[in-house]
Amino acid sequence: MRFFEDFSVGDSIELGSYQVTQSSIVEFARAYDPQPFHVDAEQARSSIYGGLIASGWHTAGIYMRMLVDTLLRETASLGSPGIDELRWYLPVRPGDTLRGRITVLEARVSQSKPDRGLLRTRGELFNQDEQLVMSLVAVNFFSRRRT
Amino acid sequence: MRFFEDFSVGDSIELGSYQVTQSSIVEFARAYDPQPFHVDAEQARSSIYGGLIASGWHTAGIYMRMLVDTLLRETASLGSPGIDELRWYLPVRPGDTLRGRITVLEARVSQSKPDRGLLRTRGELFNQDEQLVMSLVAVNFFSRRRT
Repeated sequence: MRFFEDFSVGDSIELGSYQVTQSSIVEFARAYDPQPFHVDAEQARSSIYGGLIASGWHTAGIYMRMLVDTLLRETASLGSPGIDELRWYLPVRPGDTLRGRITVLEARVSQSKPDRGLLRTRGELFNQDEQLVMSLVAVNFFSRRRT
Repeated sequence: MRFFEDFSVGDSIELGSYQVTQSSIVEFARAYDPQPFHVDAEQARSSIYGGLIASGWHTAGIYMRMLVDTLLRETASLGSPGIDELRWYLPVRPGDTLRGRITVLEARVSQSKPDRGLLRTRGELFNQDEQLVMSLVAVNFFSRRRT
């Protein structure tokens, strides 16, 4: 189990890769973002995107899934109060393979709840052409190791 | 169809309501955020949250769905470059009924692409006790009306 103390500013952790399928793009968007360029391949072709693209919220969910699988499952994570600077730079399309990375920007003990620490991180997703498609700055709470 | 010109700074639009079920919380989280307090009711009870809570990304997706259903379906929306200040204030739990609102903070024509305008908006979700559970600041692109 990893605790707050096991992370340092500057740490950069690879989050593996994730293949994005057309069916997952459409399924996510039907539930949470049913705009034509996310759910209808034909209408998407005549949109400014020239074809079906993933909802930005789906792409954020994919980042979260990679983060949980690689890191949070074995970390004393206590959730997050929020995200800053969530940016979608390029469309994510069916068949894309995304690669993730998280970098620790700041680490400090909570003043109000000294049993936990706070990490500010930068998350990034790249596609198979090494283009940055999404980034965000997140805050996460983690338990401190009992001493 | 609504275009960029149909929005003004200060406009505030109600986005209706959305009931959050336990099954939707677990289903979303199994796919995109499988932390114990989102997917396992028993483990969630002994967590700091005292019970199952929705992934913050799920809550953001619910906001997006309400926005699409109420507004974007009949608006010449061209997507979004990003989000700032996404904040989760309080847990969202099974059975909660969320109410949404969007307020226009800024409206300007794109300098690089004068066929479209840019709206900066504040989105908010409240629960059935009128508590603010989530807010965000978003930028969205919209087509300008052809004159």
